[in-house]
Amino acid sequence: MKSENNKSMDKIEGRNPVMEALRSGRTIDKILVQKGEKQGSVIKILALAKEKRIAVSYVEKAKLDKLSTSHSHQGIIAYAAAKEYVSVSDIIKIAKSKNEHPFIVICDDIADPHNLGSILRSANAAGVHGVIISKHNSVGLSATVAKTSAGAVEFTPVAKVSSIARTIEQLKKENIWVVGADMDGENTIYTHDFSGSVAIVIGNEGKGISHLVKEKCDFIVRIPMLGKISSLNASVAGALMIYEVVRSRQN
Amino acid sequence: MKSENNKSMDKIEGRNPVMEALRSGRTIDKILVQKGEKQGSVIKILALAKEKRIAVSYVEKAKLDKLSTSHSHQGIIAYAAAKEYVSVSDIIKIAKSKNEHPFIVICDDIADPHNLGSILRSANAAGVHGVIISKHNSVGLSATVAKTSAGAVEFTPVAKVSSIARTIEQLKKENIWVVGADMDGENTIYTHDFSGSVAIVIGNEGKGISHLVKEKCDFIVRIPMLGKISSLNASVAGALMIYEVVRSRQN
Repeated sequence: MKSENNKSMDKIEGRNPVMEALRSGRTIDKILVQKGEKQGSVIKILALAKEKRIAVSYVEKAKLDKLSTSHSHQGIIAYAAAKEYVSVSDIIKIAKSKNEHPFIVICDDIADPHNLGSILRSANAAGVHGVIISKHNSVGLSATVAKTSAGAVEFTPVAKVSSIARTIEQLKKENIWVVGADMDGENTIYTHDFSGSVAIVIGNEGKGISHLVKEKCDFIVRIPMLGKISSLNASVAGALMIYEVVRSRQN
Repeated sequence: MKSENNKSMDKIEGRNPVMEALRSGRTIDKILVQKGEKQGSVIKILALAKEKRIAVSYVEKAKLDKLSTSHSHQGIIAYAAAKEYVSVSDIIKIAKSKNEHPFIVICDDIADPHNLGSILRSANAAGVHGVIISKHNSVGLSATVAKTSAGAVEFTPVAKVSSIARTIEQLKKENIWVVGADMDGENTIYTHDFSGSVAIVIGNEGKGISHLVKEKCDFIVRIPMLGKISSLNASVAGALMIYEVVRSRQN
């Protein structure tokens, strides 16, 4: 199983993401702060930066606006050593090193960076060992993803693979159950047994899980839809599935 | 309990929201379509508009861009009779008319229109009878909210109240349990009993549920946080709570 060590996201924008990057121990090259910025959280960041001997420059707001990709830098941008992708095997090793059943999230072509960021946030909160995205994915780990993840991108191992379908085959050989969410699932999330080693597949916002990937899933489960709306937001549907695993592991 | 019949959201942008507005039977004044637009979903909308004798104008993309508030009109904007807010009593009546225990969602100052839209979408999907927002809420039912709700704003009764705290008192008199989510909850969402009449309180993205509102809640429950991130996205946390009620009602 090939997964690439692509570089990405060397620019971190906004107070919370910069603070999380510092706390995570990630190598930060420098921090740009808006002149006159006196927010409590920025002061905390500056204290931590001093402690870690990280270079800080004070710049005009216009400069940050120009550098910003997310357009919500909140007066602070940090430049970090590029985040390295891990391999799928690394994720499984992380689970084993913790003596836990692997708990993995697979994003099958999430198109909206806000959704990918939100999924990374939920995945980290739920104790997921790693997230797998496709190299053909519509979005990578951009500044918007990092911002929406509220820093989770710093803490969550991400593997980027050539083929989600082939990756599922690899996971099955490791005795990991692969569960996708779709309208036509036989069981609901409330009747499916999520215990044991599990990978949750979250599909594209408009098209859902691709036909090929769906065929590879061990189970397709559905989330009850009781109103007039026929689907949930992808990151919400993903979180509902992810937290069913948490429930199962806590019981 | 006072609730206002404010007018809002007479402009509906994007294919899905326009289609949902048509399907919901809401009075549409006119529809503007981008010249040369031949998407399947737009053709369906035009057929439905013809059937309902709604005026359709073909305009240049530049005109739609200028009119658009959401900046994602997808070649179509409809103008509808303004959505009327309902009262809290109306929501309770809706539940009673269905012979169901009231199931209500309260948004205590949601600041991001994407989150409010996503909460309306999850609320509708879960069969919620109505959503309550404060008139002091940072966001109202804007075009962005409508778009993110994927049309749910059309189907979900929304009450706008002067005081969430006083509204909670009213709900308690109706024997509705009021449950808020917060980090310091004694029980987790997995050990709390969500059966019966219930109102779920979702707090602000940064500050959580306000002190005053929190004191009025019957229960505060927490969502397990197992990673390094200390909170979930507000619309995700809300959906996890909302769907616990679905689980409880299905069992």
